[in-house]
Amino acid sequence: MADADSSDLAGLAAQLQASCLARGATVATAESCTGGLVAEALTRVPGSSGYVLGGVVAYANAIKEAQLGVGSSVLAAHGAVSAQVAIAMADGCRARLGSTLAVSVTGIAGPDGGSPAKPVGLVYVAVAAAGRQTQVRRCVFAGDRQAIRAAATVEAIRLLLDAAASLSSSPGR
Amino acid sequence: MADADSSDLAGLAAQLQASCLARGATVATAESCTGGLVAEALTRVPGSSGYVLGGVVAYANAIKEAQLGVGSSVLAAHGAVSAQVAIAMADGCRARLGSTLAVSVTGIAGPDGGSPAKPVGLVYVAVAAAGRQTQVRRCVFAGDRQAIRAAATVEAIRLLLDAAASLSSSPGR
Repeated sequence: MADADSSDLAGLAAQLQASCLARGATVATAESCTGGLVAEALTRVPGSSGYVLGGVVAYANAIKEAQLGVGSSVLAAHGAVSAQVAIAMADGCRARLGSTLAVSVTGIAGPDGGSPAKPVGLVYVAVAAAGRQTQVRRCVFAGDRQAIRAAATVEAIRLLLDAAASLSSSPGR
Repeated sequence: MADADSSDLAGLAAQLQASCLARGATVATAESCTGGLVAEALTRVPGSSGYVLGGVVAYANAIKEAQLGVGSSVLAAHGAVSAQVAIAMADGCRARLGSTLAVSVTGIAGPDGGSPAKPVGLVYVAVAAAGRQTQVRRCVFAGDRQAIRAAATVEAIRLLLDAAASLSSSPGR
């Protein structure tokens, strides 16, 4: 997926839009390493205002805390790039922006910032949805900074697609 | 500027990063019609975490109110695509995210949503900065949806560059 290009993103975003509009579902985004690319990809599609409420680009940890309600203790215990922070970002985003679904992305796009335990390309993607536990996926993407960001965005939209598909049978809606 | 491409954006974003890092200035974004493209363009540059705090993609009016503090009366009186709302978005973004500079973009990227008074391509860009009145510019861009979004993003980064350049002589910092 490191070679994800803009046509992949456009196709996936169009699929998500159709799926959400058919279900009356709304989406919000909480992005760290992708820096707005998920929201940008979704809103590139005409008519996306019918289901995209908006999102938060939480690049600094202070923004993750203030705008998404991520606990400082969670950040201190696990680091910004962790499953726990991804889940807290998605849950906080969904609660604060009031969407049916919320996706979060936190990772290390590089070229700097990697370590043996958390290498460049490590990305956590989480999706929060009504009536079910928040799902999180750990990914390690290859490629340069923009390839990692694009691959993470593809993964985020795929997880949103899965979550949207499961909504119709969810008792939470 | 309707033919703004990614190399324009990358060059401008790199200039802004150098200017802000040299001054110790931070940036936050508040985007409606660009849907995250301004934040995405800024954070495409390695090292952007040194000055980009984050941003809000406020696609729905409810998000403009809840996350940026834009007054419902301002939205009702002037519409989401107006100089007044652009100023309120930039001011609210700067206050809430705590940045030195904040930029906002609100407009009509089309293909739908235009009117004789507010045609497709109409975009307001505002920049809030310490120690001066918030600046707003009215633009009308040609081209399709993505060209309008790209041109608005170029304008946003240019206004941030101007604001960053003026910081060194500002008594507000």
